[in-house]
Formats: sequence, structure tokens, C-alpha cells
Amino acid sequence: MNIDMMFHPRGVAVVGSVTQGKIGYHVIVQLLEGGFRQVYAVNPKAKGILSARGFSAVAHIDQPVDLVVIATPAPTVREVLEDCGQARVPAAIILTAGFSEVGNLEGEEEIVRTARRYGIHFIGPNCAGLIDTHFDLFPTLEVRPPKGEVSFLSQSGALGGVVLSWAEEQGVGISKFISYGNGADLNEIHFLEYLREDPETKVAALYCETISDGRAFLQAARDFTARKPLVVIKSGRSQAGQRATLSHTGSMAGQDIVHDAVLRECGAIRVPDVEAMFDLCKGFVYLPPVKGRRLAIVTNSGGPGVLAADRAEQSGLLLPEPTPSLRDELAAGLPATCSLKNPFDLTVEATGEQCRKALTAVLREYDAALMINVSPAYLDPIPLAEGICAARQEADRPIVASFMAGKPVKPSLPYLRAGGVPNYATGERAATVLGWMADFEERKASRFAVQAPPAPVGCLPGRGRPLEPQVMEWLRENHIPVLDFRFASSQQDAVRDAQALGYPVVMKVVSRGILHKSDVGGVILGIQNEQDVLYAYRSLQGVGSGEDFQGVILYPLVRGAVEALVGLTQDPQFGPVVVFGLGGIHTEVLHDISVRVAPVDGTQARAMIAEIRAFPILKGIRGERPRDVDALADLLVAVSRLPFLYPDLRELDLNPVFLLPEGLVVGDARLIGQEGSGVEKSL
Amino acid sequence: MNIDMMFHPRGVAVVGSVTQGKIGYHVIVQLLEGGFRQVYAVNPKAKGILSARGFSAVAHIDQPVDLVVIATPAPTVREVLEDCGQARVPAAIILTAGFSEVGNLEGEEEIVRTARRYGIHFIGPNCAGLIDTHFDLFPTLEVRPPKGEVSFLSQSGALGGVVLSWAEEQGVGISKFISYGNGADLNEIHFLEYLREDPETKVAALYCETISDGRAFLQAARDFTARKPLVVIKSGRSQAGQRATLSHTGSMAGQDIVHDAVLRECGAIRVPDVEAMFDLCKGFVYLPPVKGRRLAIVTNSGGPGVLAADRAEQSGLLLPEPTPSLRDELAAGLPATCSLKNPFDLTVEATGEQCRKALTAVLREYDAALMINVSPAYLDPIPLAEGICAARQEADRPIVASFMAGKPVKPSLPYLRAGGVPNYATGERAATVLGWMADFEERKASRFAVQAPPAPVGCLPGRGRPLEPQVMEWLRENHIPVLDFRFASSQQDAVRDAQALGYPVVMKVVSRGILHKSDVGGVILGIQNEQDVLYAYRSLQGVGSGEDFQGVILYPLVRGAVEALVGLTQDPQFGPVVVFGLGGIHTEVLHDISVRVAPVDGTQARAMIAEIRAFPILKGIRGERPRDVDALADLLVAVSRLPFLYPDLRELDLNPVFLLPEGLVVGDARLIGQEGSGVEKSL
Repeated sequence: MNIDMMFHPRGVAVVGSVTQGKIGYHVIVQLLEGGFRQVYAVNPKAKGILSARGFSAVAHIDQPVDLVVIATPAPTVREVLEDCGQARVPAAIILTAGFSEVGNLEGEEEIVRTARRYGIHFIGPNCAGLIDTHFDLFPTLEVRPPKGEVSFLSQSGALGGVVLSWAEEQGVGISKFISYGNGADLNEIHFLEYLREDPETKVAALYCETISDGRAFLQAARDFTARKPLVVIKSGRSQAGQRATLSHTGSMAGQDIVHDAVLRECGAIRVPDVEAMFDLCKGFVYLPPVKGRRLAIVTNSGGPGVLAADRAEQSGLLLPEPTPSLRDELAAGLPATCSLKNPFDLTVEATGEQCRKALTAVLREYDAALMINVSPAYLDPIPLAEGICAARQEADRPIVASFMAGKPVKPSLPYLRAGGVPNYATGERAATVLGWMADFEERKASRFAVQAPPAPVGCLPGRGRPLEPQVMEWLRENHIPVLDFRFASSQQDAVRDAQALGYPVVMKVVSRGILHKSDVGGVILGIQNEQDVLYAYRSLQGVGSGEDFQGVILYPLVRGAVEALVGLTQDPQFGPVVVFGLGGIHTEVLHDISVRVAPVDGTQARAMIAEIRAFPILKGIRGERPRDVDALADLLVAVSRLPFLYPDLRELDLNPVFLLPEGLVVGDARLIGQEGSGVEKSL
Repeated sequence: MNIDMMFHPRGVAVVGSVTQGKIGYHVIVQLLEGGFRQVYAVNPKAKGILSARGFSAVAHIDQPVDLVVIATPAPTVREVLEDCGQARVPAAIILTAGFSEVGNLEGEEEIVRTARRYGIHFIGPNCAGLIDTHFDLFPTLEVRPPKGEVSFLSQSGALGGVVLSWAEEQGVGISKFISYGNGADLNEIHFLEYLREDPETKVAALYCETISDGRAFLQAARDFTARKPLVVIKSGRSQAGQRATLSHTGSMAGQDIVHDAVLRECGAIRVPDVEAMFDLCKGFVYLPPVKGRRLAIVTNSGGPGVLAADRAEQSGLLLPEPTPSLRDELAAGLPATCSLKNPFDLTVEATGEQCRKALTAVLREYDAALMINVSPAYLDPIPLAEGICAARQEADRPIVASFMAGKPVKPSLPYLRAGGVPNYATGERAATVLGWMADFEERKASRFAVQAPPAPVGCLPGRGRPLEPQVMEWLRENHIPVLDFRFASSQQDAVRDAQALGYPVVMKVVSRGILHKSDVGGVILGIQNEQDVLYAYRSLQGVGSGEDFQGVILYPLVRGAVEALVGLTQDPQFGPVVVFGLGGIHTEVLHDISVRVAPVDGTQARAMIAEIRAFPILKGIRGERPRDVDALADLLVAVSRLPFLYPDLRELDLNPVFLLPEGLVVGDARLIGQEGSGVEKSL
């Protein structure tokens, strides 16, 4: 389907009542007032309004119609689509609510079926329409925003309306607006693909609560950010809720941490709210790329510069001091009262020419500059604005301004806007934007290639939850280094196995009924001799009694390893997710983990490893030898491929993984397959 | 001194040039335009302007003058103060810059001396003056803000100006404004004391970069918050810098974490920037106290409610679902299309009366309500505003609004303001304010009593850095449980001591030259027998050779303990600070520590313990027995008193402290005293 038809239709029909106060009426008025002329009203009485002629059916319209806006009650929508189909209309906007969002799944499926039959593509239902300011097209109830270069995709119609209402006062022009509502047919993925190619879109912003198809989104977002910035508000952080899961991995990796990782890896910038979204879009529209993290703050007063410096550091920017040669250059051109440290304080007596000089000079050394101007009521801020704009003309690096505050600086703001210098209410907000823009450039450079998942090769070793020896064997077959182990189902076997492994050994109960072995005394460490083995066996037999006791598993005792957890879980929107953290308290108490949508490559794996707070432990602290990070990255890559090689695999915990100075070895493993899947092997 | 005189002077003299464009001129114009009449101009030519008569000296003024504004060049300020002294003026505002802020400490000391001689109190130098809107008093260059109940104290004049400029557009009226500049005489502490008693101040906001006297501030802020809310912007987070220090404790506890702890304990609310400050002040001015964390979000659309819910949870609020009886009540009064889960969605068709009903009902069950209204262009928002204001009349619990956005909702905002309902640009900002207001009530309830420091009792055991056995002995004398230890200066003694302690033992080198014993092989664990002891002694002797080797210290080996660090360091503004964290990676890698200004009581000590992220480890995880938190609290209390008992004490590391299921014991200690202090004891 050619989505472009939606934004550039030859004619638009609006189906619905044209009585004043009804939605159909308002949409027609909007279209006409917005400057679109080929508008037709469709209603049973064929009533027209204003310059829009009336027809009793879309099929009766005697002019080309490429887009139909449907604003009739939910039960009639299918019928209207039939009419559109007869008229060979390729595209529709279904404003009507009352479908899946209120549980009417059947009704929504029905309109999708009908539309598909006629090859109609649509946005909605339950949406607020769309806007193309460059084509004067406003089939929506929302306010008409100023023309510009930001396109906004919104799952929520209400939030879309808020954004459009704010666009003017925030100084951000809109190119296209799409409220895709329930996304029953077209959704954010289709529009990201369209906007990527749209010459009138410089930046896209997306508000979403859910993601339609995680993996398709991943690819679409990644392709988008290769060309243009993508700003995302993903809400529902608090709604992630507790999914019922049996693995540690599953219970640790909430949805939100997955979304964070996905968006970061796609190269998108996730912002917390609509104000931040505007701030950032404004930066992307006005500024050249922020190609480094070295920020110079130039002010005409102390306090606000300090606040901005604090925020800049929190946003990942650096505030290095100037080099001696820059200091000399500044000193030569500025009065002696100026402070030539970063933040640079030109004092309240700074002139526009001094601002220009200072900004031009610092931008030869720094990656970006922030000019904060605090205008007392008696100062004229316009010369400063002019000085900044002059510097902007000379520099190919970003300059942002914060002219504080209120009435005294208002007259200067149009100068900044005309001069291409975005202005922010506070230096903190400006610094935050520069930090995100630097993130964007960095992520663009390091953006991952979406990994093709490998093809399935086989089945899991047993239905549901196989036993530990089965899982360890299966891991070994998949070339994952596991600790040497023996399964013993009698005391005699256990003694023989312990001798074969060499003392000291570890023994654990093998039983279908026990989920958390160490919580019930099902793990015995440091077994030194035959007598210990016999005692341990009997003890574990007791623990497993009544729980389908199968025997014990024996391992050699590992000393001096750093313990890690490597796991897999399922995200409802993105599918298999690989999880990494250090063992014990690091994951369970401190929740210090990193996640990625599987599969991952070596570069992603190494980024996961470096991302945890506890990473210095792997580099070796207090004289400990560093751990083999390459082996760990290999393990993460291998594990991340397993759910594709074995599609029955739901969740996996490798915990502990013993990380050694050279290599690593998996010391325990639990696996959850799809219930009813897998081939039962005997032990 | 009676600070009240500054805000209610019988007459004000302005000393400085009255040429147009000069500061003296502008201040006089401000005073007169603001409505104050008893203004006198003082300058060599005795030139008056407008209705202000001119005099050549303050002493020549023939009317009572209680306040002099000094705007003359820095070198003349002393002289002007002499003139004020002759005239028996009690108070001055020194606007003039060029004192300690540019390194002119001598000049500043001189004016302080002069003022003291005459009993004059002053604000500044290098300040922006003050304002009392209720007395129509504006001796400042800054804009005149609307009258209100928020008083603002600012160390930065520029930031003060920004706040005043914004006050009107943010809907926040100002009572008093004080820019105290260098604070050479009066500073934030004096004004907190004054504003606490001021009936025209409901809330105070403070911007500061440094704090004049940490312990006095602690007391003043604490006393203030017992009566009124205190909102603080403390900047310079990024400026904390690295203090040169020899102890672990000192290097971990940056200044900013100390400030966070101090402000939290005083009951103040620290906000990140000026926008947040306004948001919060507005909440405190308009709303009754937020006496719990249960928030109901009521909306007329989905998306913005979800965003607000996310932020509310991040701000520490709870969003419980309604009880069945509340659901029934709501269902009876609202259309079936409304969603009766929290956030409650009344849909875009909600009427003002439905809003009123819903808010009134939820406030019987929740501690606060947030109403988000997203008005499409075709909806009239005024009835909703009226409904909310009606609910506000009925409820004694807080209601805040977020009417989003732009032009469509503008006409309704005056209704909200008049009805006492604060409105925020986004639901997120409103939720953040409610979270802080709930914090304030909680902190008020649990606010600590400032501990009186104990009186000095003695000297440290040795100058500078005493040796480990000396420190352990000294701790024992101070009733701090230390591990049994022996000091041995020969192999024979070491063998005897090891036998006395019982194997296995730990041996460490005792030497003045070695700072980090374990980094140089100066700690040997798990010594099992006499032969090991002899070998270890020789090895440690080798390690200590050339480093003023004194012998070895022996301890029994402790098993199964959780290791903690308890320490003391010095904050430049607050003096001794006590620090707590778990050992090893928890403090060194993860920086998971809590701090308090010393001394602390048992309640504060328990709060410190519970505050670290790793606290669950002390409660016992994975079958481990819980640790003796009472003993740990006792230790923190005892340690926090040491720097007062021993004023020479600069820094102390107790690391590790072995935390046991019953009791605890200190396993190693390092101490740094003031160089040259202490009494050298022989070992």
C-alpha cells in the first residue's frame, strides 16, 4: 500500500453526521479551514455543508476520492468500509471508538477483514486522525499546529492533541501528525518506514504505551535512526506488573528495562515526558549534530551557570577547562573581570560582541556551547541575542541559549529563533538536550545490526522443566562449557563419582518437585571424603523424599571464581531476551543486570557486560585477576541463540556461571520449556 | 539585631550616583514606583530625584532612616558605613560587588569590622537587595513580583532575579525576597530564623551554592521545617571535587551526598531546578498537607493518565485500586463508559458535575487526587474547572489539576486559580509535587533532634596515623567491640600469641610506612599452625622491611560474618560525618553508602542502616541468619561521638566490621588524627 496517498489524497470524503456539534461536521470544517478544497460529506440525507457537497454514499461521489474519514457509530463502520470498497478508495481513517479498546475484539477483527477484502488500508479505529501541514491536510478534530519539520506519531489521541496544542508555544513546527489509535491495520511501524523517506520530516517523535510487533519495531526504529533522530515516550513503566514466571531471570527482567535496552540499541532517545520531547525535538530541528561531549557554558552571571553545569554532568557531558591558548585568546578579547574558567562568566556587563567573540572562540575547542543570559530588568537583552546569532553563523557546532527569564528577555526571543538558536527556559533543560543529542550521535555510530535468528535444530531435553543433569548435558551438546558432573542414583554410585571427580565435591538433590534447591537444604558444599558423601546422599534423599527424588548430581568444588548469572526470558512484545548480571546479591538484592533482545552478537554482548554497575569486579579489583570477558561474551552470544535453535525454550537460568581468569564454566542450570514440548530422555 | 527593621524601615536612604543608568538611580525609582515614600538620595552633590530629596551624607538626613542601600564603588563602602554609624542607622544593604567573590577578603573583613563597631547589620556585599511585597518595599534592581506567600532566599543575585521575573507567569506570589550575596554579616541562617516567625511567609525557598555554617544551618533549617515547608536548590553537585584524603571513608563521602542527607534530615525538600521549585512552592501555598501516599488519578483520556501514573510511582506515591464500595459509588454516579480503575478515565464526554462527584468520592479513600483534563479544541474546559473547584470546596484533602494544553484550556485557568486548585503543565509535574509534599509530611514526623555533641575527654593514641594495635586498643577503651588481637614483635611472640588466640589466625604487618596492607601482601589469612606462623612472620617482615617495620598483629579468623565499613570523615561545611556501608565491593565499586552529620542517635543510626540498597543482606537472604542491627546501630552512635570526645580525630575507617547474628566485632581500623596532635604511646 502506498501510505503516501493518505497524506496527499486527491479528494477526502467524511462519512458521518454533519449536524453542528457532531464529529463529521467538525472534521469537514477543519479540512476546509485548513485550506483543503476537495472535501465531500457523506450521510444518509446527502447533506453538504459549507463548500463540501453532500452524497449519500462514497460510491456516489463523482470526483476522485483517495481518503475516507469515518465518524459513524461502531456498528456501522463495516458497512461504510464496504461502500469505500465499492468506490475503490485505497485509504481510510476510522475515528470511531468502541472496538478493541473496550474489549470489542470481534468488531475490530471484522473491520480488518472487510478492509483487507477490498485492499483498503486504514488508521484507527479509536484515533484522532492525521495532519500534513505541508499539504494543508487536517482530517482531525485537533488544533492545527504551525508548519515545521517534526512529525509526531501517537498511540493516544488525547496526548496527540496536547502536543499539537503546545507546538506553537513551544516553538516547534509540525510536519505530519498521525494518531494511529488501536493500530488494527497500520501502526507505528508502517509510519516510521514512511517518515524515514519523507523529505518534510527531519525528526520523528513517538508516543506509545504498547508496541505492536517488537521485532518489526526494532528493525523499523533502527532503520529510521540511521537517517533521522527518533524521540520516544514509552509510557507504562509502572504498569509492567509482575509476570508469573518460575525463573529468576524472568522475575528480574521487567518489561521496562527491556524497553530501555531496545530503544537505546535502536539509536532512539527515550524521554520522560512531553516537555522533554519538545525540548529535544527543538534541538534536533535547529542544531547541527552534537559530535562530542565537551561542553562550554558561557554566562553573564554565576548561579544559573552552576546549575547548568551540575545538570550537564548528570547528562553525560564533560566540562573541561580551557587550554592555555584558548584562555589567552579569551583574555585578549574580554575585560579582566570575566571568569575564564568553565562555566565562563562574562559578567552582567557583557556586550553582544563579547558574547560573539567568546562563543566563537570556545567552539574551536569544545563540541557545543550553551549561552545563559540572565537579564535584569534594566538590561536590553537584544544585543546579546544578536551576538549569539552572529556566533551561530560562524560556527558549524551547536550553540543553544537559555535566556532567563520572564518579561525582561521576551523581546529577544524572536531574534534567537530567527537566528537558528534554540532557547530553553533554563540552562538545565538546554544541557539535558545537548546530552541527549550527544547520546544520539554515539548510538548512531555504535548502532547494532539486527541479528538474524538462527533456524531451529531440535527439541529440548524433556517436557516442561527437565532435571539438572539433563539440562547440563544439553548445554554441553550445545558447546556451552559446563562443569564436569556425575548423576548418581545410589550411595555406591555417588562414592564412585565423587572419587572420579576428586574431592572436595558438591552434591545437589535431583528431584522434579523441588524448585529452589538451596532453600530446602538440597545443596551440600565442600564434601571431603567417602563418609561425607554417604552422609550427604542420605541427607539429600531425605530432602527429596516425597518430591519425586531421582538421585544426586555431583560437581567438583570451584574456588576463586566470580559468579555470574546468564539467563533467558520472554518479553511479551520482543520475545526472547538475554539477561546478564553477577551472582547472588548483585542480581537478587541490587538488581544490577543488563538485558538485550536475543540474539546478540559479540559487540552487543560486550556492551551488556560493561553496562552493569559491578563491571569493575570483572576487570579485577584489589589485586584479583581480571575475568575472561571474551569467554563471557561468547557465552552470551551462544545462549542468546538457543531460543531460536530450540523454539520450545521459554526460560533458562545459568546460575552460577563461574567466571575464571581464563574461560568460564556453568555450575548450575534450570530450564523451562513450553509445557508439553520436548522429548523425554531417560537420565 | 532586629531583622524586622530591614523589612519595615521608617525611611530608606540610597547612597550612590543618581545619574540615570546608575544603580543608585534605578534603586530609587524602584522604591518609589513600588509605593514606598520615605526615600532619600545620598551623594556628594546632595542631588535628589523625583520625590526623593538629596543629602550629602546619611547623617544629614532630617528624618528617621532605618535602612541604607549602598551602591557606591567598593573602596568607598567602609566610609559609607562610617556615615551610617554616625547616623545610628541599624541596617544596610550592600549591593556593591568586588569583595570576597573576587578574592578581596581584606576589603570584606574591613567592612564587617566597621559595621560591627557601629552595631550595623547588613546583607551583601555583592547582592541584589531585598523585597517585601506586603510593605511595598523594593530596594533592589530586580523586577517587582506579585504579592504572595512564598519567601525566597538566594545566594545568587542573578538567580534571584530569574525567580522574581518568573513569579508572575508561574502563578506564584512572593512575600519576601532576600539576596544575601557574600553573606559577610547576615546569611541564610538569620533569614530562616526570621521567616520562620514571619506571618506573611507560608513557604520558604532557598538557593545556595555553599552553606555558611553547617551546624547552625542544620539547626535553623530543622526549626524552620517544624513550622513551614522549606524548598532548597543546592547547586554545585558537580563541583564537589576530590578532596585529598587518606581514608576510604573520606574518598567515598563526597560533599553532595552529605548535603542530600542533611537536607533530608532537616525536613527540607531538595529540588533540582527553579522550575521544580516553583511547582513545589505552588503546591505548598495552595494545598492542604499531603498526609499519605495513596493517589487517585482522574482523567478524561488515557495516555496522559498513564504518564502521570508512571511518574507518581517514581515519586514514591501509591496508586491502589479502589475498594469495591468506592467502585460501586462511582459506578452509580457515572456513565458506563468510564473506566473505574486507577487512573480513573471519565472519557472525553465527562461533565463538570461528573468530575466533582468522582473527585469527592475518591478523596474519601485516597490521600490526594490529580485531575488531568485534555481538552480537544471543540470542548469547553470551563465546566470541568468549575467541577474541580466545587470538589475542592468539599474536600479537606489536596486536589491538583493538569489542564493540558495550550490555547484550548487557557480560559479555564483563572477559574482554577481562583478556586484554589494549582494547575500544572503536565500530570507528571503535578505528581512530582504531590510526592515531594508527602515526603515533607513524613520527614516532619520523623525529623531528628539535632544531637548535642559530647564534651572532649582526651587525646588520640599517637600523632597523625597511629599503628593498628594502638587504634584497636583505643577503640576497646572506648567500649567499641574489637576482635581479640595480639601484637608481636618477634617470631617467638607470634607463635605464643597464635596459640593463645587459637588457630586458624590472621596475621598482618604493623608498619608506619604501609598504607594499604593487603595491596602489598601485608595480610595473611588462614594460618593453621606454628610453622605457618613462622613463615608468615618472615614474609611480613620482608613486606615491612624499609617501611619502619614494628612487628605483626594477630587475630583469630572470623567466618560467616557479613562485612561492613563504618567510618568518619570531615565535611568542610558540616564537620564530622559518619559513614556506613557493607564491605568490599559494596562501598568501593557500587558506592552503596549512607552518611549523616555526627553525632547521631539510635533512630538516625537505624535509618542509615536501612537506607543502603544492600540492606536486605542484613535482614538475611537465602537462608542466612539476620545480622544484629541493634548492635550495628549502637556502633554507629558510638563512632559518631568519637570526633567530639577526641577533637583531634580527623578520619576513621573501621573496615571490616564483622556483623554477626548476635553482636559484631571490629576487625581492622585505621585512624587519622590532626598532624602533631595526640600522645605517642609505646606499643
